[in-house]
Amino acid sequence: MSTDSNFPVLLLVEDEYLLVPILEDALSAEGFNVVTAHDGTTALQELEARATEFKAVITDIRLGTGPSGWDVGRRARELVPSMPVIYMSGDSAHDWSANGVPESVMLQKPFVGAQLITAVATLLNSTSATESVANDPTKPSS
Amino acid sequence: MSTDSNFPVLLLVEDEYLLVPILEDALSAEGFNVVTAHDGTTALQELEARATEFKAVITDIRLGTGPSGWDVGRRARELVPSMPVIYMSGDSAHDWSANGVPESVMLQKPFVGAQLITAVATLLNSTSATESVANDPTKPSS
Amino acid sequence: MSTDSNFPVLLLVEDEYLLVPILEDALSAEGFNVVTAHDGTTALQELEARATEFKAVITDIRLGTGPSGWDVGRRARELVPSMPVIYMSGDSAHDWSANGVPESVMLQKPFVGAQLITAVATLLNSTSATESVANDPTKPSS
Amino acid sequence: MSTDSNFPVLLLVEDEYLLVPILEDALSAEGFNVVTAHDGTTALQELEARATEFKAVITDIRLGTGPSGWDVGRRARELVPSMPVIYMSGDSAHDWSANGVPESVMLQKPFVGAQLITAVATLLNSTSATESVANDPTKPSS
Amino acid sequence: MSTDSNFPVLLLVEDEYLLVPILEDALSAEGFNVVTAHDGTTALQELEARATEFKAVITDIRLGTGPSGWDVGRRARELVPSMPVIYMSGDSAHDWSANGVPESVMLQKPFVGAQLITAVATLLNSTSATESVANDPTKPSS
Amino acid sequence: MSTDSNFPVLLLVEDEYLLVPILEDALSAEGFNVVTAHDGTTALQELEARATEFKAVITDIRLGTGPSGWDVGRRARELVPSMPVIYMSGDSAHDWSANGVPESVMLQKPFVGAQLITAVATLLNSTSATESVANDPTKPSS
Repeated sequence: MSTDSNFPVLLLVEDEYLLVPILEDALSAEGFNVVTAHDGTTALQELEARATEFKAVITDIRLGTGPSGWDVGRRARELVPSMPVIYMSGDSAHDWSANGVPESVMLQKPFVGAQLITAVATLLNSTSATESVANDPTKPSS
Repeated sequence: MSTDSNFPVLLLVEDEYLLVPILEDALSAEGFNVVTAHDGTTALQELEARATEFKAVITDIRLGTGPSGWDVGRRARELVPSMPVIYMSGDSAHDWSANGVPESVMLQKPFVGAQLITAVATLLNSTSATESVANDPTKPSS
Repeated sequence: MSTDSNFPVLLLVEDEYLLVPILEDALSAEGFNVVTAHDGTTALQELEARATEFKAVITDIRLGTGPSGWDVGRRARELVPSMPVIYMSGDSAHDWSANGVPESVMLQKPFVGAQLITAVATLLNSTSATESVANDPTKPSS
Repeated sequence: MSTDSNFPVLLLVEDEYLLVPILEDALSAEGFNVVTAHDGTTALQELEARATEFKAVITDIRLGTGPSGWDVGRRARELVPSMPVIYMSGDSAHDWSANGVPESVMLQKPFVGAQLITAVATLLNSTSATESVANDPTKPSS
Repeated sequence: MSTDSNFPVLLLVEDEYLLVPILEDALSAEGFNVVTAHDGTTALQELEARATEFKAVITDIRLGTGPSGWDVGRRARELVPSMPVIYMSGDSAHDWSANGVPESVMLQKPFVGAQLITAVATLLNSTSATESVANDPTKPSS
Repeated sequence: MSTDSNFPVLLLVEDEYLLVPILEDALSAEGFNVVTAHDGTTALQELEARATEFKAVITDIRLGTGPSGWDVGRRARELVPSMPVIYMSGDSAHDWSANGVPESVMLQKPFVGAQLITAVATLLNSTSATESVANDPTKPSS
């Protein structure tokens, strides 16, 4: 399958410029459209602007000064409670159990591309089920 | 804890009159409020009238002539896509994989009260999470 | 790995002729053997003829007039209760919670090939465990 | 609900005579029928004689000389591959990941009765689903 | 089983004094030992003092001024990454997906005692497995 | 992504020399580093020497005379309780429920490469979470 602007759009948040093209390529090779933010502030701006367009958020934890990946995950969920969230980290992985959001994935670096793709695919596939349940006209909006 | 009209209300569908008080007592002893229908037609009427008031549907499969428990589960989900559904059966249990709704529980008779209570409690507890995700003002209603 | 007639055979049910080769290629590129039906009636015929040869059923929901993907999934499970079932749909996804079979996957279009492959692989991998449990000489056949 | 010989029968394996009545009472209070073995050898004899009558096996790990709880769990699964297995232990709990069978529960002592009942109920409830899948006339017996 | 100081100790955090005895009784009736804090500050003090003694934390979300239940859950996990966490709330339940910790339970009020007991028991039972895995002398401490 | 000695190292145990390069290539194509043992004895030696370097163990069951894949999985878990374990087999798959370790995957031959990759990726992704929980300085080592 080729890249198609109708395919799911993912928000990638990574500040290590050497890693960015590797991650972008791994995702777009599968047909995903990728929007990349290089720090937490930009990531939050992207979310404020168009959170509902993203089908998943993939974020590094350490993003220099400013908001961390934990902040990005939390804000994504405030805007879209069902947002699939995948964290990536080397040394912050052990903080996931205190700082991650429920039903998120923590990828410990170094990981191979197949781990990222499998994580994204698995979360997207279960979101279809959640959305099937969520579109419930009888439920009052919050 | 005592029975309180604010506690979750469950729809119980059972046509075996000897079993009805046993099941009702097991559930109300835990504080649940129980509305009982003795056949599929009445169950469907209850659902049409007030499906959103029920926190779970517990239904036998064989309900005499008229709609079966499979029909009751399906209609409950049409009205409330996130409705916890628990089926009970002796000889129809093997049909669950073709006729049950996703993420439902099939209790094979004979079962003890603790199995029913655990099934209800487990489904209700995970529904809280689903509702947390579903109340998403950014999602278009279906 | 190359296509080998010993590799798992999947039943694909899709009526959109533009999509068929895309889906077939995505699956066969991974080594799966694919049998394609272009409508529900043909799919049901394939199931009647050789359901036990299929390791999974992947079906669109809207299949024109005649049986829908919901009917295909249900009949597959009547014949092979452990059959992995994957549904694909754009606008019918919200009906999954009422019409899908238990432990099935609902892929919301548009999805990327990796989502389909991951769904198939995950279901096949858990079926191995189920079959390990099911081959129980002490259990009476139904 | 009262104890009824039609309710599920469980095999309890515990060599600490002070604990036996406490565990038996906790289980029979919920309506379960309990067959107790006080060592591994007796437990294995019970399994050889009537494994298919038990709906679950609940076993301590340390059972004096002779077969351990690990051996009991393994033999139960050889005879009934879908047998729910619950282990209980104080100091052997850390060995579960190497010696337990798949999809078993490890209860670390001290635990309260509700933990045991919830574990049994949860496993029995999911077995109904497995049996629904396993009763597949199209599958060759092993 | 009677209350025994060897049975699991739980930290309960609830500021509604009318609810406290109801929750305490529901838990201690099952044999749990309960330590109650009536606000977030006290809860955090209890955690700082003896987090490793608690087998689970059960906390309301709204705790007046001062730390919320979200803060309590997070701090518990910083001190004991495997700590079972159960939140209770009426109107804050929809915030769980942004503020809860991974693998926690959100109980929406009003709930019956059986829901709380089932949630605690289920989390404690799976913690035994996690601890079995975690006691790995070959892993470097963080 | 290219093969990098920093990427996860996997232990592959397969005695069928025709299969070895196929499995090795499928794994290394994704960036995994593969150490292959051709029988159980060698596999156990590798584990004794450097179990902590492996991120997963993938093993055939029938390995000629000497230790089987069941023995390899068990020993891996004794050394590293959280070790992801994947079994592969044609005719021994039905023994998994008695001989496999908890939370392992059983791949029934013939399977396609995507099933192996998905199984490895899924287990590695959930191990990150387990390790996040396991690195708990407050827990006593066993």
